[in-house]
Amino acid sequence: MKRYQELACQIEGLIERGVLKPRMRLPSVRQASRSYGISPSTVFQAYYALERRGLIVARPRSGYFVNCQQPALSRAPILAHSAATQPSSLTHRFMQAMQDCGNVTLASPWPNPELFPLGRLARSLNRAARSMDCGEDTVPMPMGEECLRRQIARRYFTAGMVVPIDEIIITSGALEALTLSLQTLTKPGDIVAIECPTFYAALSALERLHLKFVEIPVDSHEGLDLHALADALERYPIRVCWFMTSYQHPTGVTLSDDKKQALVELLAHHKVPLIEDDVYSELHFGSQPTRPAKRFDRDNLVLHCGSFSKSLAPRYRIGWVAAGSFAPRIARAKWTTTLSASAPAQLAIADYLEHGGYDRFLRKLRVDLMGLQAQMLRAIGDYFPRGTSLVRPEGGYFLWVELPPHVDSVHLFEVAAAHGIAIAPGPIFSATGAFRRYIRLNYGHSWTPAIESAMRTLGALARRFDSSSGQRAAFQQTNI
Amino acid sequence: MKRYQELACQIEGLIERGVLKPRMRLPSVRQASRSYGISPSTVFQAYYALERRGLIVARPRSGYFVNCQQPALSRAPILAHSAATQPSSLTHRFMQAMQDCGNVTLASPWPNPELFPLGRLARSLNRAARSMDCGEDTVPMPMGEECLRRQIARRYFTAGMVVPIDEIIITSGALEALTLSLQTLTKPGDIVAIECPTFYAALSALERLHLKFVEIPVDSHEGLDLHALADALERYPIRVCWFMTSYQHPTGVTLSDDKKQALVELLAHHKVPLIEDDVYSELHFGSQPTRPAKRFDRDNLVLHCGSFSKSLAPRYRIGWVAAGSFAPRIARAKWTTTLSASAPAQLAIADYLEHGGYDRFLRKLRVDLMGLQAQMLRAIGDYFPRGTSLVRPEGGYFLWVELPPHVDSVHLFEVAAAHGIAIAPGPIFSATGAFRRYIRLNYGHSWTPAIESAMRTLGALARRFDSSSGQRAAFQQTNI
Repeated sequence: MKRYQELACQIEGLIERGVLKPRMRLPSVRQASRSYGISPSTVFQAYYALERRGLIVARPRSGYFVNCQQPALSRAPILAHSAATQPSSLTHRFMQAMQDCGNVTLASPWPNPELFPLGRLARSLNRAARSMDCGEDTVPMPMGEECLRRQIARRYFTAGMVVPIDEIIITSGALEALTLSLQTLTKPGDIVAIECPTFYAALSALERLHLKFVEIPVDSHEGLDLHALADALERYPIRVCWFMTSYQHPTGVTLSDDKKQALVELLAHHKVPLIEDDVYSELHFGSQPTRPAKRFDRDNLVLHCGSFSKSLAPRYRIGWVAAGSFAPRIARAKWTTTLSASAPAQLAIADYLEHGGYDRFLRKLRVDLMGLQAQMLRAIGDYFPRGTSLVRPEGGYFLWVELPPHVDSVHLFEVAAAHGIAIAPGPIFSATGAFRRYIRLNYGHSWTPAIESAMRTLGALARRFDSSSGQRAAFQQTNI
Repeated sequence: MKRYQELACQIEGLIERGVLKPRMRLPSVRQASRSYGISPSTVFQAYYALERRGLIVARPRSGYFVNCQQPALSRAPILAHSAATQPSSLTHRFMQAMQDCGNVTLASPWPNPELFPLGRLARSLNRAARSMDCGEDTVPMPMGEECLRRQIARRYFTAGMVVPIDEIIITSGALEALTLSLQTLTKPGDIVAIECPTFYAALSALERLHLKFVEIPVDSHEGLDLHALADALERYPIRVCWFMTSYQHPTGVTLSDDKKQALVELLAHHKVPLIEDDVYSELHFGSQPTRPAKRFDRDNLVLHCGSFSKSLAPRYRIGWVAAGSFAPRIARAKWTTTLSASAPAQLAIADYLEHGGYDRFLRKLRVDLMGLQAQMLRAIGDYFPRGTSLVRPEGGYFLWVELPPHVDSVHLFEVAAAHGIAIAPGPIFSATGAFRRYIRLNYGHSWTPAIESAMRTLGALARRFDSSSGQRAAFQQTNI
């Protein structure tokens, strides 16, 4: 990013933190150029950028001053310090509830393991066991087992993408792929662009890596706000983006191909890499799979992270990153963190992909999930208060439910937990503490009487908050 | 650590980097107290500490000045910036050689997989596969599978240590246990104490986490220099230590119980946690296992990291940390990095520990390794030049070989690689680039004609450097 942006960003930080107060005079272009050791034109560009955004004003013959009316930043992305990630305490209470509550299926980040071909997978694990018996080539490899990387490259090829296996690194689940990529491409204090709302583990990772971040709004219909992103890229020296382009977590929204292409081109223009979290890609309800942003990546700036945890084997902890030109750096980082993914799990999944009929299973899984989604939409219609609304996702196993005014999702989370029902309250999905009217529900579990009654209880609890209690949900602004 | 130490450390940094030049006057105690916003007595303590070490001098009625003769720091530990880790390029050439060379057994960090009970382990993996078929409880757990943690706690108990299973976290190999502990207990810029020489992956981890470090000398006979450590603890705000207390990598030296106890007490006095890398503990040649420093830990400040990679199943990537009071923080960090270790590997190892006869196998493995060590010592005696010396380790599978004067291990590494033989040159084991006369040899592989001839070639190449060529090695200062 350019020096003038850096300076503008630094000055904005001083204004935000009240170091530079309204009406204060900024150093003259000449002074600043001397004291920062940069050209006057660079200082001028920075001042001009700040003036354009109403942060400072120029007074003829007297210089630049901090504006007394700072612009309301409204929906525009705001720089946050991960250290200040607020709702993490709520996140811990959420994790606690997951442990304490008898009924966690609604809150779980996982689909029901019973949906997965565990028996068939066990056969593949047996074969893996036999193949490991021979004692050959038993040094752990940072890149991962070649047979598995070959299978993954083959699936890319079928999806119309050519990904060399030397760019594929097997990881301990997609979470390692994402966090290892993030750590490799940043240093502490760097700024990362994430979605708002976003997967809470991303917020924790940013905090752990001492990164700052900008939250880019995600609309439940349209997905990521590219204008806000473009604005953020102008305003901040963003080092890398971490986005979910399909079945976004938690909103479930998917970017259109056009928007994915526009996203890739926008980032390429700024030379900013994209860490693409695409762990739900196999769970599409349409006949055609969605295409990842990586598909439109001409500049090798997209690190595409995938996983088998959501669609095959959660406990095997096998994911990967197709890291493009960053692959050697990621492999070196892998070499000094976890060295290599567990071989039995890698070999078993490679065997399953080759002989197990993954695609046949996935077709069944998608139908199962669609049925379960319909069940939950029906239950919300039956039990939840009027004014409840949502946008039906085209895949995955989460619903992002907007509750009526007056319903506080954190309060609902607390009282539901008291009733032994765990749900995910909206604020854990953003560092801003927003989304207090939203909850995330998981419909990826076989529909049992227990779930039905949990939904009934939850609806009743939600209605208590609501003036128009007793009345059932009527979905506005949804495409159910 | 205390504020005066911090100030003294900061001032020393300025002197080391030439910001404060010899004869420069330091701010008066009163000035410094004002400008740093600390009490005059704190400033005085800092100045006094610097004066005691000869870094500054007090002149009556004129104040404190940077000493013109800076003391030679000699063996005393010196603060290093991981960013400046020099030999990493050599480390990469070493990794490259491992890939390119036909004969890598001498350089490998792994023992020969043929030594391991792969067949028996495969049976356990089969059982794990069957047990995973049921579909119960299939959500990944950050702490790891309880059955495995129970087995590990049992082994601690047999070794005379009571470790609650709630303090044991299963990791993707010990490397994750070590780096996760390091990351959880530090923030970028913190100072870590490591050994010199040390395991090269530790240097890479420090660099990746943007940590500074102090290298504490390790003597091949006596092990860690506790006086140097005590000195370093006085001089620097050390946040955490990362040490190998038994069969240290690469020297192979083991601290006596007394020294381990003294180490733990010294660190407890300074309230500094110890990350104890104990991955070779099962490979002891004596009848009795060595006791870890953790055994003497009354203040719950020791994070004991173990592994099954060196003594059972390298490719399974299963290690653990007994993290004491730090366990909840480590578990949370695990939750946002790799979430959980791979279940099939965990369940297989748990089954093997319960039914597989681990201890019987270990007794055989130790005998095998002792025999292989004897072979390699014999070969060094037969082929290496006079003046070659080493200290025979009481366990593990590495020899830390000191070559005669005039033999440069980096040069030897290069010419050996040209002959298709990979070895580990001394300088990759320290950020200082020292140990140019040392190489690390791995004797953990079945003794083959290929290894015999590689040793012969290596000895011949080493003799070329040496004036007294043609003459065979005679071990001085060794206890062979």
